This record gives sequence, structure tokens and C-alpha cells, in this order.
Amino acid sequence: MEKTKVAIVGLGTVGSGVARLLLDHGDRTARHAGRALWLEKAVVRDLARPRDCDLPDGILTDQLDEVLDNSDIKVVAQLIGGLEPARTVMLKLLESGKDVVTANKALLAEHGPELFDRARGLGRCIAFEAAVAGGIPIITNVSQCFSANQIHSIQGILNGTSNFIVSQMDELSWSYDEALAAAQALGYAEADPTMDVDGTDAAQKLAILAHLAFGARIRWSEIPRQGIDSLDSTDMQFASELGYRIKLIAHARLAAAGLELSVAPTLIRAGQPLAEVRRNYNAISVVGDAVGDIFFHGQGAGQMPTASAVVADMIDTAVGRAPITFRTLELWSSRESPVQILPDKDLPGRYYMRFQVYDKPGVMAKVTSILGDHHVSIASIIQHEPELDAGDNLVQLVIMTHEAPEGAASRAVSKIEQLDVVSGTAVRMRVMEAPRSK
Amino acid sequence: MEKTKVAIVGLGTVGSGVARLLLDHGDRTARHAGRALWLEKAVVRDLARPRDCDLPDGILTDQLDEVLDNSDIKVVAQLIGGLEPARTVMLKLLESGKDVVTANKALLAEHGPELFDRARGLGRCIAFEAAVAGGIPIITNVSQCFSANQIHSIQGILNGTSNFIVSQMDELSWSYDEALAAAQALGYAEADPTMDVDGTDAAQKLAILAHLAFGARIRWSEIPRQGIDSLDSTDMQFASELGYRIKLIAHARLAAAGLELSVAPTLIRAGQPLAEVRRNYNAISVVGDAVGDIFFHGQGAGQMPTASAVVADMIDTAVGRAPITFRTLELWSSRESPVQILPDKDLPGRYYMRFQVYDKPGVMAKVTSILGDHHVSIASIIQHEPELDAGDNLVQLVIMTHEAPEGAASRAVSKIEQLDVVSGTAVRMRVMEAPRSK
Repeated sequence: MEKTKVAIVGLGTVGSGVARLLLDHGDRTARHAGRALWLEKAVVRDLARPRDCDLPDGILTDQLDEVLDNSDIKVVAQLIGGLEPARTVMLKLLESGKDVVTANKALLAEHGPELFDRARGLGRCIAFEAAVAGGIPIITNVSQCFSANQIHSIQGILNGTSNFIVSQMDELSWSYDEALAAAQALGYAEADPTMDVDGTDAAQKLAILAHLAFGARIRWSEIPRQGIDSLDSTDMQFASELGYRIKLIAHARLAAAGLELSVAPTLIRAGQPLAEVRRNYNAISVVGDAVGDIFFHGQGAGQMPTASAVVADMIDTAVGRAPITFRTLELWSSRESPVQILPDKDLPGRYYMRFQVYDKPGVMAKVTSILGDHHVSIASIIQHEPELDAGDNLVQLVIMTHEAPEGAASRAVSKIEQLDVVSGTAVRMRVMEAPRSK
Repeated sequence: MEKTKVAIVGLGTVGSGVARLLLDHGDRTARHAGRALWLEKAVVRDLARPRDCDLPDGILTDQLDEVLDNSDIKVVAQLIGGLEPARTVMLKLLESGKDVVTANKALLAEHGPELFDRARGLGRCIAFEAAVAGGIPIITNVSQCFSANQIHSIQGILNGTSNFIVSQMDELSWSYDEALAAAQALGYAEADPTMDVDGTDAAQKLAILAHLAFGARIRWSEIPRQGIDSLDSTDMQFASELGYRIKLIAHARLAAAGLELSVAPTLIRAGQPLAEVRRNYNAISVVGDAVGDIFFHGQGAGQMPTASAVVADMIDTAVGRAPITFRTLELWSSRESPVQILPDKDLPGRYYMRFQVYDKPGVMAKVTSILGDHHVSIASIIQHEPELDAGDNLVQLVIMTHEAPEGAASRAVSKIEQLDVVSGTAVRMRVMEAPRSK
């Protein structure tokens, strides 16, 4: 049987999972690829560090050159996190004639144009299924399976850590801090969870998907984003009372005025598939003009789901499918025309608003008349009686709007915040409509 | 830009959709394939018949030879339904040097080995994403994206007609006949819906998936199957009372004893993703040992979702990905070892049982002691008071079992049916457990 020699650079959690699939289950890759993927080298920084896989003698090395100089090695899984040395290693691998598979979405979101240009110039390819949504093969589905479609929208839960936290806040009425501590204890969140909870990770993934689906060559940092780190459990409770759940939604939709892109906590009606995504799962809803609405749900991270995606890419690269995809899609090439991204404030939609108001006559009239002046129509309202022992005379006023004209909701909220019967700043979140096929 | 000339044979609903995607949206296929797909010919039986698409002059023909003899045409979408002349046309296309894309699952389920062998011998390829679950790209996902996995199970709603009928029976308390009439009025069911409602269509699709996922070279007709045509709305009501829904589930699971395969109405706990699939949608839950559980939901049939899958296959074939997949997977080749299919009665699992019993003392003891003798443990029981005006003194006794030893549930039910306190035959259905990752 034909044999393709492969290597791994970076033997952390995912790298160890990839090594195990290649070493323990070579029969499978042989069966599905029609050839053996032979793990020749695994490059690590520190040879002494204990690892989650058993490697035969001669595979482990701390010398990248043993891969670069070995022209028999054709495919390399580059599994170093962060930007450097990941970027430099990736360039060296490409320059030494290797096709590269990676799970590093930050690297692609930051240096995609440079890396893809270089790979193209060298006649090499980069595969990156594992970079977005882990085990859900959304890259292949969007770039290959839906290629007859104009994609209208992609809405997803792309960060499992955030979803775990908001799910626990919602279902168990935990505070943000309690849910984060649990996520860390279970290994779903890093010691420093900033990139997960502030929306950075989801925005980087969304930038990659938006590029694939809409040819939008945008920087992830341009995507308006809001994390879950400032989420108040009060809003989870009100959302629940209204029949909604709050999820961190990465949103991309092609509208007449341009491309809507955002990452933000969003209210979704309970029972809708995205609303029911629990724990650390990911899920993605895609609407295409021919295929209609398609929904994917699965493990978005973790050792083996991510390794599954990496090894599938290694097989695709070894058999020659990935190079074809890379060549035909011309990702991050100059072929793409720039797409205009709509500013966050201009995204049309329904809104959830919460104000702290003083419990006195005329408050409701003042608030609602400002909304009316801005043509923001009210769909539902909640104001509970003040707590018996509340000393501050403040109550929560929650308003769900109908679809509002662009920018109007934002201007109305600013005006309401200036009222002397309103305390502090308001909370405003988008409300997601069910995905609709055309 | 490079150009690949293509043709369509059969211009019915799906064929017209394919023609529209190719003619009206050539920019897309060009963008995603890096080349133009040029529709050169569309072969029909009757030139005079009105069609759902506008074709430029010179494309429509009733002469298959205009495709066979034109060596510029490389890829042909063969969209004739049924077995003949579909099989003969497919062989002629392959023999004249064309790669073929098809949506005809009956043809593949019946003649897969012959067609794939011939294609291999001729160095041609067959792509068939549209043959299973329409717009859901389950063929690509199972055969390409999950290739690093041992797949443990596939459970799906693969027939939209049946799902529409059972959903309407469940949600609107319609009778089977009412729901079928509505499905026909909406175009979801054929005038003769037999293949859809008796489980044949789902079994043919399951045979294809089982072949891809488990290398099981089996005939679809060997799969134990039961349709929804004998489903009684009484059971929908009891299921609902128990917190379950009834769906027509195509089930494949690799167990220690062999491959479990079946198509049958099955109880699924409400809230589980497969239980919540409404109207004519399809959905599939796949569990792989690395990727965990992945769930897909989308349009399983219909003109444009199916055309979306056909055109994606035409692009894959034109760019060269599909030929690689076809070559490496060696589908329906002699490489596959036969897999032992477990007989229906031996499938382990939980069961729903309904008996009509006479409302007299000692009945419950007789029924439950037979179950106990067969080591079938009872999870829950429902027996309502008899209707006031019921003249026959019969009541419904519904029992949900815990997991039962193989065959025991079946033997116990036979014994219970012989009791003189029991009238007629019992209803027995499987109860699905939530998919579990290892």
C-alpha cells in the first residue's frame, strides 16, 4: 500500500490526539485514504515534558530541521498555538515544500493573507478544518458542499467556553463568576479565559467563515464584538421569563446594504435550535439560497474532536483533495472584492432593552414616548413590582421591540438614559429571528 | 477562465433546478470551482412537455447520443428516477467516458456494485451526494470529514414525507389518512406514496450510509424495516403522555455482536434533537469515536436543496475532488468484508408496548409476571380508566421497559398476546436512547 510520510509540530493536547489517531488507528486512515499516513516525526520544544501519547522511538524530536530537511515528509500538522513562533514555523514548512494542516484560527485570522499568498506562490496548500468549530466540519461544508449556493447567513455558537458559561448561568442560575470557575475546573476554559469570554475567539472564527462564505476579506478586529464577560444574570432571568435564552452568537448576513457581521450576546426564542445548545457544544445555522437552512451541532473543541478534523485534513491533503480546494478557492487572494461591513449600530433587528427606572408616576410614558418618537415599536414589556425591602426605589423595566429602523434603537436608548427617572446605563441586546429560507 | 462542459439527463423537478443553478448562477460555480460549468445539453424524453426552466436554444434534445457522442462533455448529471432506463443510461454514460452525478438512491441501492465496478473499470467516477438526505451533505461528511473516525452509530430521519405525516399526526392529532392527504396536497408525497411510507426509501438510503460508514456491503431489502403506514394515532398520544415523540428512524449501530440496522417507528424523548424535527425536514445524528456526536438538520428533498447537492457534486467532479474520493474509497468493491447484520428481534434496547386488555381483576399481574419471567423490567406504565360509554370492556395498557435482553421482549409480547385477558395483537416499538459519545 502506498504510504505518505507525515509529521506533527507541537504535541500539546490536540497534537497528542492527532498522534494517537495516526499511530493507534492507522488501519482507518489507510481504509479511507487508500494509503497509509506514516507518522515520521513529532517536533516539540521540550523533550522532557510528559505527554498524552506513546510514541515509538525515533519520532520525538526538538529539532524542526528534522522535518524541514526530510523531503519524504509531505504533510505536516502545525499545531502550535498563538502567533509566534507559529507563523514563522508555518512559513518555514511551506518553504521546505510541505503542505500544512493547522487548527490555529488566531494565526489564520491575523496572518491569513500572508500565509495563503506564500503557500500559493510555492505551489503548496494549507488546510484548516480544525480552526473553526472543532469537530463540526463547517469549513468543508461551506467551501465545498454548499458551493452551488449564494449563502445568505451564518449564525453560530462558535465558542464552547462562553456557551458553557451562559448555559450554566441560564439553567442553574449561577453567577458569571461561578460558571467561569466551573468551566475552568472542567478544563473548558483556560486559566486566562479573556479571548474566549470577550468574543475575540468567536470573531476570529467568524472572520474565517465570512471569508469562505462571502469572499469578505476582513480583519477579525473590525468585527463589532461584545463578549459575555459583562453579562448580568438579571438579563438571563428576564430573557427566560420572555421565553428566550441568551447565547453568544456570531452573526453574518448578506443584506442589501452590505455584510452584517457581529459577535454579541443575543436573545433567541427557546426551542429554536441555537437556543437549545447546551454546555460546551458549538452549533451553526447556515442559510443558502438553494439548500435552504442547514443546522450543525457538535463538539467545537476538545482533544479528539479537534484531532478528528486535523487528521481528516491530513488525509484530504495526502490524497490530493485539499490541494484542489486550496487552488480553486483562492482564499485570501486579491480575487476577492472587499465587502462593506455594516457598522454594529446599523444592524436592523429586534432589541431587548433593560432600564433601571425610579418607581414613580409618568416613567413609563416618558420612556415609551421616546421609543415612539424614534419609530421603535414595542413588542412586549415587563416591569415587576418593587421588592418590599428595596431601599433605592429602583425597578427594572424590560422592553422587547419589534424590528427597528437602523440606528433608531441606539439613539432612543441614549435619549432614555438621559432621563432623570432613569439610573445608570441601559442594557441592549439583539434578538435573533428564526433562520428563514428564501 | 477554464470551462468544463456538462450535461443533464432527465429534466424533471430536480433536473430543472440543476439547469437553473447552472444557467442563472454560472458566476458562483465559476467562483467556487475556479472554472465555468457550461451546460451543453439537457436530454429529455418528451421535447413538448412544459418545464420549470428556460433553456437557451440548442441545449434541449431527446437524443441521448448527442451527449454520448460529444467527447467535450465531461460531467453528466443523470437525474432519471427509477431503475430502468436509469441503469442502462448510467452505464452508457460511463462507457462513453463521462463522470456521472446522480440523485437516484434506488438505483444505487439496487445496482451499486455493478455500477461502481463498471465505473472503476473504465476509470470514471460516480458522485451521489444528492441520493441521501437531499440538501444535508451527509455523504461528504461521512466519507470525507469523519475519515479519522470509527463511526459507532448513525441515526436519522431520512424520509421527509414520513416525517411530515408523523409530525402532523403528533402535533395536530390528525389521523394517518388526513396527514397523508395533506402531504400529497403540499407536494411532499407522491400520488403513490408506498415507497416513502413503508420504509423502503429510508432503508435504501440507510444501506448507502451503512456502506460508507461501516463498509457494510448489504442489500437494502435485507434491512429489517417497518413503515409508518400502520401507525395508530393512539400510540402517538400515549407517547406524548410519556414525554416522547414517534419518528421513523433509520438506525445503524456497530455493536459487539454485529451491525444493528433497522428502519422503524421509534419513540424518542421530547427535547432530543431528532424528536424535534418537524414537517418534511431530515436530520441525522452521527457518533464517531473521535469526533463525538454530530447532528445535522436540513431539507432532505425538494427541488433546490437536491439541486444544490447535485451541482456541488458536478463542481467536485469537474475540479477533480470527486474522482479522488471515488478512487480512494473503493465503494462497493470486493475490498469490503461482509458485515453481519443483527436480526431485528435481536436488537437490544428499550421498548414501548401497548396491549388491549379486558378490564378485570388480575390482568396486570398476569401481564407483568410474564415480563418478569423474561427478565424484561418495567420503566413506566399507563392504564387509564375505561371510557364511560365503552361497551367492549377493553382498556389500553401501555408499558415502557428498561433495556431488555435480546429477543426477550419479543418472546414476552408473544406470550402476553396469548393470554385470554388480552385482545388482538400488541403494538411494540423501540425507544431510542440519546446518542452517547464514548
